[in-house]
Amino acid sequence: MNYNDYISVVNDFPKKGISFKDISPLLKDPKAFHSAIKDMCKLAEEFKADIICGPESRAFIFGAAMAYEMNKGFVMARKGGKLPGVVYQITYQLEYGTATLAVPQSSFTKGQRVLLVDDLMATGGTFKALQDLVTMAGATPVGAVTLINLKEFEDSVVFKLKCKSLLDL
Amino acid sequence: MNYNDYISVVNDFPKKGISFKDISPLLKDPKAFHSAIKDMCKLAEEFKADIICGPESRAFIFGAAMAYEMNKGFVMARKGGKLPGVVYQITYQLEYGTATLAVPQSSFTKGQRVLLVDDLMATGGTFKALQDLVTMAGATPVGAVTLINLKEFEDSVVFKLKCKSLLDL
Repeated sequence: MNYNDYISVVNDFPKKGISFKDISPLLKDPKAFHSAIKDMCKLAEEFKADIICGPESRAFIFGAAMAYEMNKGFVMARKGGKLPGVVYQITYQLEYGTATLAVPQSSFTKGQRVLLVDDLMATGGTFKALQDLVTMAGATPVGAVTLINLKEFEDSVVFKLKCKSLLDL
Repeated sequence: MNYNDYISVVNDFPKKGISFKDISPLLKDPKAFHSAIKDMCKLAEEFKADIICGPESRAFIFGAAMAYEMNKGFVMARKGGKLPGVVYQITYQLEYGTATLAVPQSSFTKGQRVLLVDDLMATGGTFKALQDLVTMAGATPVGAVTLINLKEFEDSVVFKLKCKSLLDL
């Protein structure tokens, strides 16, 4: 399937100079969505993961559907302040300002192999934060899968684990 | 499966007096998560929906996994300001303050039967807003499915379509 046909590009959103990749057309199309999840699961196979973790909120769509298809559990990495109880938490740098991600302290068993999932990879800053967070939580990040990889950032990637994507844009 | 065993209750979160239902234990357990999605899809059958819509962000987990299992498309109802282009948007009252949900203008075809999905139903204020939003977008909301229904709010429910839940708490 040519997934490119289901991504619409919106220039200067959310800020001037940024070319936003809108995944809404893919999600609303039953065949494209189903096929994308199946193909992302195939990409994930080599990582032999025990469980999937994805950052709030679009990653919840891909991470949960992949977890369902692969019979794995799913851990939400939520934005700061949204989880009750004791959490592991990391604050990391974005292009403008900072962001915080957190997981419950009981998310993983020791050494569990964790697949990181998101809709899109640019420099991999979010994945790097997620990798550190999962490591802090006692588990082992083993790789990442995304729908889209943005080629223009390939020289400034900060995430050093293998990331496989359905689509290079 | 006794889903109750996979929900942990946290008192006074996020505010004093609120008893928070934490779904993290269910999500991270492969069998409980898979079974919950399958059972929510069974609950959804009678609505004969064409497409699924859920509000950011926990509903993305259940809505997307159900859409995958049922071979339907999924529409994200996102918080205000996060979607590019022309959107339908609704602002509604919460217990404290207001919230905004939006969908892209091209989300639905006219008259399409839309199943609303969320993790939890209390008074149904979010579902009522979602119902109005989907109607505004030219489609037909046909019912709702959640993981959890909070019985304590049954006398103050504002959402008048049928809502079916796996678990009454």
